[in-house]
Amino acid sequence: MPDQDELTTHLALARSPRVGTVTFRRLIATYGSTAAALHALPEHAARGGMKGYRPVDMDLVHREVEQAMDAGSTPLMLDRPGYPQRLVHLSDAPMLLWMRGAMPDPVRATTAMVGARNASALGLRMARTLAEDLGALNHVVVSGLARGIDTAAHEASLETGTIAVMAGGIDTIYPAQNADLAHRIAANGALLTEAPPGLAPMAKHFPRRNRIIAGLSDTVVLIEAAERSGSLITARMALEQGREVMAVPGHPFDARAAGCNRLIREGAGLVRSAADVVEALEMPTHMAFAEEQATWQVEPAAEGTADALIALLSPAPVAEDELIRQVDRPAGQVLAALIDMELSGAIARHPGGMVALA
Amino acid sequence: MPDQDELTTHLALARSPRVGTVTFRRLIATYGSTAAALHALPEHAARGGMKGYRPVDMDLVHREVEQAMDAGSTPLMLDRPGYPQRLVHLSDAPMLLWMRGAMPDPVRATTAMVGARNASALGLRMARTLAEDLGALNHVVVSGLARGIDTAAHEASLETGTIAVMAGGIDTIYPAQNADLAHRIAANGALLTEAPPGLAPMAKHFPRRNRIIAGLSDTVVLIEAAERSGSLITARMALEQGREVMAVPGHPFDARAAGCNRLIREGAGLVRSAADVVEALEMPTHMAFAEEQATWQVEPAAEGTADALIALLSPAPVAEDELIRQVDRPAGQVLAALIDMELSGAIARHPGGMVALA
Repeated sequence: MPDQDELTTHLALARSPRVGTVTFRRLIATYGSTAAALHALPEHAARGGMKGYRPVDMDLVHREVEQAMDAGSTPLMLDRPGYPQRLVHLSDAPMLLWMRGAMPDPVRATTAMVGARNASALGLRMARTLAEDLGALNHVVVSGLARGIDTAAHEASLETGTIAVMAGGIDTIYPAQNADLAHRIAANGALLTEAPPGLAPMAKHFPRRNRIIAGLSDTVVLIEAAERSGSLITARMALEQGREVMAVPGHPFDARAAGCNRLIREGAGLVRSAADVVEALEMPTHMAFAEEQATWQVEPAAEGTADALIALLSPAPVAEDELIRQVDRPAGQVLAALIDMELSGAIARHPGGMVALA
Repeated sequence: MPDQDELTTHLALARSPRVGTVTFRRLIATYGSTAAALHALPEHAARGGMKGYRPVDMDLVHREVEQAMDAGSTPLMLDRPGYPQRLVHLSDAPMLLWMRGAMPDPVRATTAMVGARNASALGLRMARTLAEDLGALNHVVVSGLARGIDTAAHEASLETGTIAVMAGGIDTIYPAQNADLAHRIAANGALLTEAPPGLAPMAKHFPRRNRIIAGLSDTVVLIEAAERSGSLITARMALEQGREVMAVPGHPFDARAAGCNRLIREGAGLVRSAADVVEALEMPTHMAFAEEQATWQVEPAAEGTADALIALLSPAPVAEDELIRQVDRPAGQVLAALIDMELSGAIARHPGGMVALA
């Protein structure tokens, strides 16, 4: 825990109007301390032509510190001990982060997993599998505590190491239904935010949050990202930060794969499994994980109609009546076989009369 | 239609034991006609150490021509008018193809569509959509008349231009349920095969058929190809031939996408739609590399040339021009000795101008 004065002047400088990371660092480098830098702000503003510049009200700073401490969080201060090394080199590195929990060992590789909030069952399963396998390979999983892909990624990496970066205050869990997950992340990993306590996140806060997710990660993996989705913004930030960007492909007929497929066309690595992520990080001489185990073989093989259906089905949902047309058997038989397969767990039903391999 | 004698001597040379494309061309270049080349075969074999070499029985040749004509096909003869220009530069260009129908305008772009026989409903829909859209963009679709992806691709491109390359005889449609489709392809496009009439295709014939599919195409697109599938062999051949190789991605949990996803990881273009195929062709990086035109004339080999070659050769293929350099004798003599040894069965030719002890 830092010295209280050091924390309050650091926070005051960071929260003062129009102080960004570059200015923050230059002022400290110039004046030798945060207190001196803070003191120098009005002069600088005045020289810039602004009379009456006022640094942040110190009452607000004290209140923020109190609220953050009450919420059980500790500060990570830019360029001070304990600050995440991966963020130091970002031109817009957060000047202060509030943290609940503890950061995993910084020598461990970190992989961000980002993707759709309205993810499909397939996408969620992919997120869980990837997060679990990455954890087993000693990767820390970083995500944004959102619904869908984020939630699946955190849940599956709770025991191996997970970091959630939030857009709102450390005491303002969003979405509310993830309050319990946030609590478990704080107990097992780290919950981070740049925002002051009490801030309810708005749309405009997410891109800044996303730069932290990318910044904390060696690799950013996209799972189910439609065109023009927030995940693509994270990917662009990750590229700008020199991170490895990868994506899980999907069938071109699946709109949720559009952003991922576009990224891969533009040069992002194609992710089939955790091994692909590890391989991308490793030197070409270390190819231990090059061959994945193909444990996802489509089965079971029932007789007759079920076999014919299995041959026509894939994990991407297809309309039931399209299947009936293609399989060229009596509709009653096809529907019966589909019920069998559903009850056996071979297929799953999706909205709009669609079915897919489970 | 070519002169009947020209056809029978061309076919006889092509069907004679151990005559491959390289030797075929060198003999004709040396002796000035297929008839003279045919006549010279036993001498070469004898010089190579094989007594009693016999060219193909002319009765068989006449019977093949008769059967092929009865089946309504016409010959496309290597290095003669009407032969597909895209195949000319292949080191193992077919010496003769039997064709039913007519080849589409050769200035049109050609795209091969290959993929799983047991394709999913989604894969079949993708094949139809791509073939239809490629046709609308004036591409000719090339495929292999197999079940699944091939059938869908041919069906959807019947009206715009489609070429089916078969592994069996021109009168031996496989699979049998595609007899009607083959008939419609012959009426609207072209049905091609290197095989003699009556040949029922076996597994070993498909890789050679696949090289023709790739050879006829500017771009090869894979749709649903599992690991270790025949479609991946076609893709490898296409790369060796300098063709653009592309693939339709799928979800990693779908085993039928494994081959496609692997190819994309290894650098193949990702295909979402026909527009992606067209765009890849327009990129200046697309270069079909022309293989060496084997027009060298041969001259009688001097004493000892064959022995010198045998000393240099092993069962591991070595480049022909490397041999010429190493043996330090006139190229024409070395090439003559290689023809002798090929016809006598002492050596075998391999793709890329390589030779090895048989």
